[in-house]
Amino acid sequence: MSDILVVGSLAYDTISTPSGKAPRTLGGSANYFSLAASLFAPVKVVGVVGEDYESKDLEMLKTRNVDVTGLKTVKGKTFHWEGAYDGDMNEAKTLATELNVFADFNPELPASYQDAQYVFLANIDPALQLRVLEQVKRPKLVGADTMNFWISSKRDTLVKVLGKIDALLINEGEAEMLTGASNAIAASDALIKMGPKAVVVKRGEYGFVLRTQEGYFILPAFPVATVVDPTGAGDTFAGAFFGTLARSNRGLDLASLKEACVNGCLLASFTVQGFGVSALRDLTMVGVEKRAVEFNTVTSRA
Amino acid sequence: MSDILVVGSLAYDTISTPSGKAPRTLGGSANYFSLAASLFAPVKVVGVVGEDYESKDLEMLKTRNVDVTGLKTVKGKTFHWEGAYDGDMNEAKTLATELNVFADFNPELPASYQDAQYVFLANIDPALQLRVLEQVKRPKLVGADTMNFWISSKRDTLVKVLGKIDALLINEGEAEMLTGASNAIAASDALIKMGPKAVVVKRGEYGFVLRTQEGYFILPAFPVATVVDPTGAGDTFAGAFFGTLARSNRGLDLASLKEACVNGCLLASFTVQGFGVSALRDLTMVGVEKRAVEFNTVTSRA
Repeated sequence: MSDILVVGSLAYDTISTPSGKAPRTLGGSANYFSLAASLFAPVKVVGVVGEDYESKDLEMLKTRNVDVTGLKTVKGKTFHWEGAYDGDMNEAKTLATELNVFADFNPELPASYQDAQYVFLANIDPALQLRVLEQVKRPKLVGADTMNFWISSKRDTLVKVLGKIDALLINEGEAEMLTGASNAIAASDALIKMGPKAVVVKRGEYGFVLRTQEGYFILPAFPVATVVDPTGAGDTFAGAFFGTLARSNRGLDLASLKEACVNGCLLASFTVQGFGVSALRDLTMVGVEKRAVEFNTVTSRA
Repeated sequence: MSDILVVGSLAYDTISTPSGKAPRTLGGSANYFSLAASLFAPVKVVGVVGEDYESKDLEMLKTRNVDVTGLKTVKGKTFHWEGAYDGDMNEAKTLATELNVFADFNPELPASYQDAQYVFLANIDPALQLRVLEQVKRPKLVGADTMNFWISSKRDTLVKVLGKIDALLINEGEAEMLTGASNAIAASDALIKMGPKAVVVKRGEYGFVLRTQEGYFILPAFPVATVVDPTGAGDTFAGAFFGTLARSNRGLDLASLKEACVNGCLLASFTVQGFGVSALRDLTMVGVEKRAVEFNTVTSRA
């Protein structure tokens, strides 16, 4: 088992969905990722929060085996995002983005983080993703996510990142935007030629496409009839994916990658059943293992 | 092995996609269904065409083991649909619908059809679907499809049909429209309570959800990087699904249903690789079996 280093956002989100409204609920890619990954392997987090960040939210990470040495509290307010989902639960409508202290985020790794073997660069400015890579010594496996904003505003830097990572995890819409392809299959075919040895195109309620040099591994999502809040499902997938790889510590071998994707689906299916991190925070491996059996039944041909 | 009876449309379609334009190419639900189903079991087709229907298109069905005794040629022109797919290959924009001889279609079953054991009511007026059911004696298994037009204009009649069939095959968007559910899982949960013992929600490029009283069986679609023309993929799925059930002739047992869905995916993946019925027409079981091995690899966790 190896440690995982994650760099990303910690936020308070105000989220409206057909199930209700959650004001200032804990969110941010690094929180979802850390909660998911820490069920499988120890996690070290790098990020920034404001003075309003509640100590109980920090404590919660610590009780889950997450090292918060790299988490800086600075003068100002924590990143706040406000979004709403209407009929289409696959895409949020952003109502407000208050970057606050996240606007000047410049990730600095504590010395104790620099030997990290598994490094995940959540969705932040690709220039900052590169800066993190300069600070780690010899990572065994580097993964990254990105989003439409960076694809349109910093494409060249993002392409540089793709050349330096082992695994890319990316939403379907953004994979198509980045490659010009019109579906997840063609997009994954294009992305695998841009550097990463493994590409996971996340399809939301439809599951994922894993593309390696050898071919595809594709599964649907675990079936959830009532999606309360899809926010963070992709970051949860990434956390479980990386956690599984760090736990098995066999690099990108196909069996590990498949297990990582299955665990990504499983944990994401919990995340969407509550607002913010609520369902993920209360999750135990017992709950995951029970759902793993169901998921296997649902997708088994036998 | 049992015979299959299918009632549906035979048409010439004019289709534009990013891959090009096909003017007056052979189409219609009964054609796609018959070509797919006849790879597995003998098919009897009921439908109507105009004087312009080419004899080679009739001959083509005959060479594929399709009984066309129930196909009437009447004065007038064959049903013609014109549609275009832009970026979103999951939904066609209808440019023109000329019902022509299909407007007065009133399915009459030849005596030789009335003992059919497997009956599929493709997407036609639910009142006509009921009229077909009155003319078959004791079918072992009845399936149906429908579309948004009938859901909004003849909902009550459609609900009556649902009470009389064993298997419903329906598009995701239409399943949601019919049930008010916001995703395929919840829609299948609602539909299984409306009569059918098996519900297949077709998700296009994302595969399907099979819902039975016992639970779900869910797989992604077979990966196709270049979709030339998605028209008829759902009817192809239904044909392969019904063909597989008629071939095994064990009713709705779970193993048969799963095999039927897998074959539905496989055959649909060929259909989308050519305009109209072109790819499906040239397909042999050797081609299907080769792709079956690939599909198993793509979705296998081992």
